[in-house]
Amino acid sequence: MKVAVLGGDGFCGWPSALQLASEGHKVTVVDNLSRRQISEKLSAPSLTPIRPIQDRIAAAKNIGEIAFEYCDIARDYDGFKRVLATVQPDVVVHFAEQRSAPYSMLSSSERTYTVDNNVSGTNNLMSALVDLQLRPHIVHLGTMGVYGYNDDFGEIPEGYLDIEVLQTQKKVTIPYPGNPGSIYHLTKVLDHQLMQFYAKNWGFQITDLHQGIVWGTDTELTKSDPALMNRFDYDGEYGTVLNRMISQAQIGFPLTVYGSGGQSRAFIHIQDTARCVSLAAHNPPEAGQPVQVFNQVAEVHTVSDLADMISSKTGTKIGYLDNPRKEAAQNSLRVSNEGLRSLGFEPIRLTDNLMGEIEETVGKYADKLDKDVILSNARW
Amino acid sequence: MKVAVLGGDGFCGWPSALQLASEGHKVTVVDNLSRRQISEKLSAPSLTPIRPIQDRIAAAKNIGEIAFEYCDIARDYDGFKRVLATVQPDVVVHFAEQRSAPYSMLSSSERTYTVDNNVSGTNNLMSALVDLQLRPHIVHLGTMGVYGYNDDFGEIPEGYLDIEVLQTQKKVTIPYPGNPGSIYHLTKVLDHQLMQFYAKNWGFQITDLHQGIVWGTDTELTKSDPALMNRFDYDGEYGTVLNRMISQAQIGFPLTVYGSGGQSRAFIHIQDTARCVSLAAHNPPEAGQPVQVFNQVAEVHTVSDLADMISSKTGTKIGYLDNPRKEAAQNSLRVSNEGLRSLGFEPIRLTDNLMGEIEETVGKYADKLDKDVILSNARW
Repeated sequence: MKVAVLGGDGFCGWPSALQLASEGHKVTVVDNLSRRQISEKLSAPSLTPIRPIQDRIAAAKNIGEIAFEYCDIARDYDGFKRVLATVQPDVVVHFAEQRSAPYSMLSSSERTYTVDNNVSGTNNLMSALVDLQLRPHIVHLGTMGVYGYNDDFGEIPEGYLDIEVLQTQKKVTIPYPGNPGSIYHLTKVLDHQLMQFYAKNWGFQITDLHQGIVWGTDTELTKSDPALMNRFDYDGEYGTVLNRMISQAQIGFPLTVYGSGGQSRAFIHIQDTARCVSLAAHNPPEAGQPVQVFNQVAEVHTVSDLADMISSKTGTKIGYLDNPRKEAAQNSLRVSNEGLRSLGFEPIRLTDNLMGEIEETVGKYADKLDKDVILSNARW
Repeated sequence: MKVAVLGGDGFCGWPSALQLASEGHKVTVVDNLSRRQISEKLSAPSLTPIRPIQDRIAAAKNIGEIAFEYCDIARDYDGFKRVLATVQPDVVVHFAEQRSAPYSMLSSSERTYTVDNNVSGTNNLMSALVDLQLRPHIVHLGTMGVYGYNDDFGEIPEGYLDIEVLQTQKKVTIPYPGNPGSIYHLTKVLDHQLMQFYAKNWGFQITDLHQGIVWGTDTELTKSDPALMNRFDYDGEYGTVLNRMISQAQIGFPLTVYGSGGQSRAFIHIQDTARCVSLAAHNPPEAGQPVQVFNQVAEVHTVSDLADMISSKTGTKIGYLDNPRKEAAQNSLRVSNEGLRSLGFEPIRLTDNLMGEIEETVGKYADKLDKDVILSNARW
């Protein structure tokens, strides 16, 4: 297949692009390198010394057929359309969004950027495909955060909720009501609504992957050559919770828990992200169907469970801070991941010793760890 | 009260701004005059010779305290923030959106413009208010089109649906699932989702008015001075169905019905738009509550009922055309408008002889009616 990976230079995008190339697909990475730029702006570069995209692509040619197109899909509609016309993709994997919740809550410029970039990018993608009369399968990276954490609804199903309308007593299935907790999560709700309309009106085949919090840094492929290494973020805005805590432990910085730590969240390893994206890419919904949703998650933990796990392993203390976010102090969370499991997904778990691999990575670059970027500056 | 009317130069915005000024409020019209510009682009100017905004404002000073600020709220965040900082509004009425469904479906540039303009404008408004630590009551013009036309759900309630979650057997109230029928309607669903998040996270008081299709052209105030006259659109993209049909009858152009005409839609007179906006402005929801929704509608008719009514009155034939839109050939429609009625809204009805007033207006400018702009160029 010909696959365009939008945002294919990022933390999840790069390993996924390599995965698809290694499977024999013809991959085009489309990216405006904004993640690298924001890193610089926050003075929080990747802990791992990732290579320029040109070096990455050159090295990746040993793995499979892969190319790079620089493009800002949100701001350069005409350029983006030209790229899509040239690539003629069978699948578009869409990671090209600002992906940090705390970053989206920093101030008005980040709120505006996140909404404009994410919504316009998604709309431009589908609008250009309508123009070009192309109907590739679109695989969009969503987030578990679109669901909110509402105990009234039971186990979180995959994108749709079975209800009875009290007024008519009819039993129907509706899109799961969005209840986002940040501007970033909100944009994924908006994306989903946009995609539902394009699916309905223009017959697109779309899969939305509601992904949990990603941990880990490497996949088999990113480990295979130093030029292919993946980025690793541990700062308060972009570092995901487990990666950040392991980094804190490395320098004896008390493991930051915001609030009680009773927040239950879903997790997935970066290797599984790449595998699941590939599984989804190969399994489009029928044309004319509503957006297909898979919950891309492996397991559920509370934040304090994670902190306890790392603390008991490393002896680092836990530092409880007032929660700067508006979120429930604690919640239960049960999530279906039946869709991807039925396609063969066998989740990697936190207990599978891969935490040691992250510790090794962090240890290797420990002298570069910057304490000043660990705490988040965002207030909800 | 100090009231900012965003989009206050438009078809609904201008009569609403005059209404609020006449009630003694200090009104600032904020507009980028885009509606006039799009008119020119489509070669479909207002049938009525509306005056430049400066003349309108000068004449409106006889009615009340009113001022004008030129601003593109979607593209000029800093300028918009300065306007809001200066005005310090108690109420913001937000009409500043591209408001035609057919226009939004013309081609990719209109799709992009509609999404970018409407979503960014709404986000910029609330984001700037967060920055400025202002919490005026926001009154947003939504549309009945956000609901879709789903017979399974019974009478359309005001923004929220009572359901039982089958999995947990819990009875809860959820935001009514959006089911838009065009890019334009989609943006109003996106706006609503955005506003729900800002209400939840930053305590905004917001009212979303899901308005029916507007008919008529004048209100008592726009009639009171030629410099205050309202715009009148009859073209395929911006002319609302009843106004367009009356114009067609005037020149003996068969009354265009797309499809069977069995589509049921909700209607409201322009005078009632202005009155309802004022009622809503005076009745904010409690702070910390979800967005308050009122269905701003007077009555329901099918498109063929309207055509029959005008045909029997004028002798003009009905011309049935293949429906260029994806919509149900027919639907039933029952709509609650209890919220505004409980505040005193007494709807003007189509049978209240006001159709004669439109005929008079159209008759006065009949020589300017351009047959070439009557049919819509949009295809769904």
